[in-house]
Amino acid sequence: MNNQLPLYRDASASVEARVEDLMSRMTLEEKVAQVQAVSLRDSTAAEEGLAGIVKAVRDGISQGIGQIENTFDPRSPQESVREVNDLQRQLLEETRLGIPALVGSECAHGHAGRESTILPVPLAMASSWNPELVQEAFDVAGREARARGAHEAHTPVLDLGRDPRWGRIEETFGEDTHLVSQMGLAAVAGLQGGRSGNVDADHIISAPKHFAGYGQVVGGRNFAATPIDSRTLRDEVLPPFKAVVQEANALGMMASHCEVDGVPAHGNRALLTDLLREEWGFQGYVVSDYNDVPRLEFFQRVAETVEDACEMALSAGMDVDLPVAQGYQHLLKVIQERPHLEEHLDVSVRRVLRLKFKLGLFENPFVDETRALEVVDCKANQEVAERIATESIVMLKNDGGILPLQREELKSIAVLGPNADSKQVGNYTVGRTGISSFLDGVRAVAGDRLEVRHCKGCSIAEVGWDGAQSTLHQASMEAEEDSISEAVNIAASSDVAVVCVGGTTETSREAFYVDGIKGDRATLGLLGNQLELVRRVVATGTPTVVVLQGGRPYSIPEIERLPVAILNTFYLGQANGAALAKVVFGEESPSGRLPLTIPRSVGQLPVYYSQKRISFYKDYLDEEPGPLYPFGFGLSYARFEYADLRLQAAEISREESLCFSLKVKNVSAFDGAEVVQVYLRDKYASVVRPDKLLVAFQKVKLKAGEERQLNFALSPEKDMSFTGRGGVSGVEAGAFELEVGGSSRDVRLEGRFEVV
Amino acid sequence: MNNQLPLYRDASASVEARVEDLMSRMTLEEKVAQVQAVSLRDSTAAEEGLAGIVKAVRDGISQGIGQIENTFDPRSPQESVREVNDLQRQLLEETRLGIPALVGSECAHGHAGRESTILPVPLAMASSWNPELVQEAFDVAGREARARGAHEAHTPVLDLGRDPRWGRIEETFGEDTHLVSQMGLAAVAGLQGGRSGNVDADHIISAPKHFAGYGQVVGGRNFAATPIDSRTLRDEVLPPFKAVVQEANALGMMASHCEVDGVPAHGNRALLTDLLREEWGFQGYVVSDYNDVPRLEFFQRVAETVEDACEMALSAGMDVDLPVAQGYQHLLKVIQERPHLEEHLDVSVRRVLRLKFKLGLFENPFVDETRALEVVDCKANQEVAERIATESIVMLKNDGGILPLQREELKSIAVLGPNADSKQVGNYTVGRTGISSFLDGVRAVAGDRLEVRHCKGCSIAEVGWDGAQSTLHQASMEAEEDSISEAVNIAASSDVAVVCVGGTTETSREAFYVDGIKGDRATLGLLGNQLELVRRVVATGTPTVVVLQGGRPYSIPEIERLPVAILNTFYLGQANGAALAKVVFGEESPSGRLPLTIPRSVGQLPVYYSQKRISFYKDYLDEEPGPLYPFGFGLSYARFEYADLRLQAAEISREESLCFSLKVKNVSAFDGAEVVQVYLRDKYASVVRPDKLLVAFQKVKLKAGEERQLNFALSPEKDMSFTGRGGVSGVEAGAFELEVGGSSRDVRLEGRFEVV
Repeated sequence: MNNQLPLYRDASASVEARVEDLMSRMTLEEKVAQVQAVSLRDSTAAEEGLAGIVKAVRDGISQGIGQIENTFDPRSPQESVREVNDLQRQLLEETRLGIPALVGSECAHGHAGRESTILPVPLAMASSWNPELVQEAFDVAGREARARGAHEAHTPVLDLGRDPRWGRIEETFGEDTHLVSQMGLAAVAGLQGGRSGNVDADHIISAPKHFAGYGQVVGGRNFAATPIDSRTLRDEVLPPFKAVVQEANALGMMASHCEVDGVPAHGNRALLTDLLREEWGFQGYVVSDYNDVPRLEFFQRVAETVEDACEMALSAGMDVDLPVAQGYQHLLKVIQERPHLEEHLDVSVRRVLRLKFKLGLFENPFVDETRALEVVDCKANQEVAERIATESIVMLKNDGGILPLQREELKSIAVLGPNADSKQVGNYTVGRTGISSFLDGVRAVAGDRLEVRHCKGCSIAEVGWDGAQSTLHQASMEAEEDSISEAVNIAASSDVAVVCVGGTTETSREAFYVDGIKGDRATLGLLGNQLELVRRVVATGTPTVVVLQGGRPYSIPEIERLPVAILNTFYLGQANGAALAKVVFGEESPSGRLPLTIPRSVGQLPVYYSQKRISFYKDYLDEEPGPLYPFGFGLSYARFEYADLRLQAAEISREESLCFSLKVKNVSAFDGAEVVQVYLRDKYASVVRPDKLLVAFQKVKLKAGEERQLNFALSPEKDMSFTGRGGVSGVEAGAFELEVGGSSRDVRLEGRFEVV
Repeated sequence: MNNQLPLYRDASASVEARVEDLMSRMTLEEKVAQVQAVSLRDSTAAEEGLAGIVKAVRDGISQGIGQIENTFDPRSPQESVREVNDLQRQLLEETRLGIPALVGSECAHGHAGRESTILPVPLAMASSWNPELVQEAFDVAGREARARGAHEAHTPVLDLGRDPRWGRIEETFGEDTHLVSQMGLAAVAGLQGGRSGNVDADHIISAPKHFAGYGQVVGGRNFAATPIDSRTLRDEVLPPFKAVVQEANALGMMASHCEVDGVPAHGNRALLTDLLREEWGFQGYVVSDYNDVPRLEFFQRVAETVEDACEMALSAGMDVDLPVAQGYQHLLKVIQERPHLEEHLDVSVRRVLRLKFKLGLFENPFVDETRALEVVDCKANQEVAERIATESIVMLKNDGGILPLQREELKSIAVLGPNADSKQVGNYTVGRTGISSFLDGVRAVAGDRLEVRHCKGCSIAEVGWDGAQSTLHQASMEAEEDSISEAVNIAASSDVAVVCVGGTTETSREAFYVDGIKGDRATLGLLGNQLELVRRVVATGTPTVVVLQGGRPYSIPEIERLPVAILNTFYLGQANGAALAKVVFGEESPSGRLPLTIPRSVGQLPVYYSQKRISFYKDYLDEEPGPLYPFGFGLSYARFEYADLRLQAAEISREESLCFSLKVKNVSAFDGAEVVQVYLRDKYASVVRPDKLLVAFQKVKLKAGEERQLNFALSPEKDMSFTGRGGVSGVEAGAFELEVGGSSRDVRLEGRFEVV
């Protein structure tokens, strides 16, 4: 295009110099294009198939484009690479300035592309309480995404999952601010290849979401209001986002569908600019959640026209409008009519270009087919998927030591229930071969001597569409009497029965914006005849294991009262069956812990553990006190003893850390892992505080009989601060109590100290 | 005591002069006594009986006393008068300065004293949607309280009742800010004898409660945190309190058990002083909710000692510590040690004295026995109780026109169900004779020709105590098979069946602070075998009326699907049976409307209608859309048509009122009353707003065929203001839509206008 290399093409120049040079050359149209996006799965073109979509994308990028959305990539790795390379080539060669595009993706639990490695859903990964392993898992996702041409993922979800009615709870890391923060740091570091913010050629930008408060949709109803008091917002909802910005240099941020104290995130300058950039120092770009810019007008009604919505979003600091610039398609006209906005546009364009330079896209936006095939679902990645699946399994009950099953002593095993042969892996995946159901997992290890008998017994429920809205159909007992009887007969004649129950991706999912589509739930029990199936299998007297699989916690007080073992899995990903088989047959001890509280019934909500100390003073007259399973809970085949809590000081100043150590010993004959959890109670404060808060944890693997000393350090600023009466965040002097144990309700060691 | 009359004893001097003169004469001990209280039902002395309590009170007032609590007065009117007069005489004659006491009471639904007139619970009174009648009702309560020596009532409750799990929901006026405000104004005007703030010798000071936010206890769990976002607080929770201060001159205010954004109300100067007094201009005194001053220490943990709690409360503007100065008993010592607090004490003492002078207590603190007997439960008051009970009945369903029953055509009526002969009237009452159950009411009007057959059929539930906590026992079907069969047989052989179901004061009540006492609920259906009783009675084919009686709304989707009539009553007070009989037999058409939304199930919460417009966009997959019965809903025997909505202007300025008129016609052969409800939608706003809000209503009684024109005026400042994006309250220019109809979901007339 040019005879002389322009400065912005000079890789040896500074990023800032290149950005300014390029900016000086751009027309308004070209700048507007940089805050717009096109999508390789634009549903409006879907009737023409993928080829039609690609044609539309090609037509849409003649002025360049900020981002190409390739989420839920339906193509094989090779096809993706070819498609994306072709588009980048078009941008480089056929647009005036040759600016490559960022390619966006989803990596919630593995890169959402055909044949990618599928990891456990985030709620399951959080159940591992193993941030190092979670970082490995997101490193897998980041590598697979980058290998097929992506540069960014709208990942991870850092919303607090406190209402199990919400269909998106499986996408969260659970209810607790500290746990979500640690998992979020691991995810960002995994995707970006470390915490430095320098994204290498094997990794991608992480854009955490949904900034901020989306998890608190009222009633668990997706898209509902998020009424959050100011201290909950500052002390509980925002910290995971602050952590990934300040401690892991996340380079992206996706705004929330929702409002913060009445002001929608997408038009909220106080949130997207004042707080995120000016107070926290965020250096990346903000992307919209899908179609949220025009929603400022037609949904939230804070803008009277879509043009006003564009002005509101742009001037708030909402940089790139995904997936297809439903709002910012009007931006050229808006800025022509309201020229003062060009200043805001320039700010956003600079942010986009800066990232493109930082990622080296001007030098090489292309990816390699062969490399993609080597990386996607490689053996190392599969192995990570299986390890984290195994560590995500939570044993909730083990009556009489039913588990682990002794394979050599069994002649027959009944593998029952609607999820026994389920290959479901949760939402935010595309599809792949080789997903192992529990039945697959058992068969793979059964060998010749153990007979595996299978029967579903009953269904869960069918979700349909009546032309206007989603419908839910649960089978009657009459309809399933025969199949339940068959399952019961198989159980009765087997040495052991495993009943796999729970949910499906259809019965619990994101309730997309489309009218009438539902995914949130008003009940938390098992649908259909599942409870009856469990009851009747147990009644045979055959030792019974209940495996829960689904995207939400289940309120199952009736099953908890039965003499069974219970494993909770959420969705474990492609290695589901293999991981479960390892645990069921004792090759690994279960080491997952609940990342959220499981209520006895929906009427108990909200039930998350870290509510203010006064919030659980009263129990309900018609419900047993306390949750069904507390936050942090999970059993092991091993048993652990805690001892020797030693605090280095009885008093610390606000600037010092509190260092302490303790010993944990595996006092059983099984190898296993304990998750040592540290909770802190601020005895008195200027405002009403949670009774106690998780401030640290360590997952420690101990062989039978092994003892280990663990060392912790708590920082007043990070671990003891909160928004005090005056509205300022800080540590207040006074007495603190430490509680250390295996769950939020299991206190094994106690300590006291003072901040002076 | 003095040879010369001191100025403060000179009734002709100004109140301020008298206050200052008296203050100048008081010792610290005497001043402290004025912010303290004693109680005529102090439970710590209860083992010695009433005489023991009185002795303790006598001993406790040697330095004078601010207030004598005589809530839940267990004495007869004469005995009360004597006791209270004796105590006032002691204060006048046996203390140095002779300062009389304020006497505190409760008047939630009638004065809470033995033999007083018992009105419907507040939730039922709100169901009348008749503020004039509600004012009459509270006038009754105020007169009866004053007649036996009280000067103040901790009444009304202005908390928003939005969570039907909360055991205190019966004490509220429902879920809606406007309706609660109107009912609150009526209550305060009734108790104080008008809106002027001049309380005459027949009325008492109204101290609304619980200031502020107590209704929003999380999960409906009493004493729990009240997490409220700032706009909900300012635009929804506070306005009823502001209204009664500014428009009805309420002279008292009771602080809430709870916190506002983390700061407990009792230690919250921003709330009790900056907002209440300085911004709103409150001129009365603030009293503590029972024992809440020391709770700042041992419960909410914002004070490290009870002395710190006293300092926090006193300096916040919490004037008098009820009921027995559990905190302020330490105040003398606290002020001796922290002399800067005397300034705050003086401010509170002045407030107390000012009220005592204003009420004329120095001239005459005594009441008259004869007068008390004339006033308490007089015929006029009984008549008010019956009128408001009648207007509080809400007809939810009338399948095939079962109601009204045609007495002359019936030979037999089956009066069934556990509440058929219930004399329960809800909490905050003491006890009286002459309460009419539904059975009483039917028998009273049945005459000779109509045979009344009665049988309970089943129980509701029994609440017990296991030594540590409340227990709930529901009878099995087996245990009640015989009695249910008997009821069904009676129904089968009768011309009509009325089944009275619901709850009891034991199964839904205030969960007092005492450990283990429960009153909140995790389920909203009917307890025990009540639903089965209804089903089987209906299955006989006998036309069936279901009467719901209890302190909460019931989620009864199964009954709604049956071919029955349903009347909702909450508790109707002493005239319960008489009022119900009038409606059931058609002497009056039901004219109550729901003051809150009734959910289909507990999993649907929160379900109140005025949530942000986005909050009901998504329905649950496993629950039918929408509430079971919407806010404002209620049927009549009559039918009404709406016509001719005429707006005086299509545009108004922020300073103008919008005047409009419409016509309502009774197009049926029954006399009846319609509650014309006006809802306003602000089409676009700077923040996300409720879809629509109730802004006006009129209850209009129309004879068969009668038509009436109604006139309304809406004020932008009062009816269209909200806290905008900048945090300032005001009206925003733009389009508004009016919806007029018979419930929040029944739109009969629509209009549009602009604020310019």
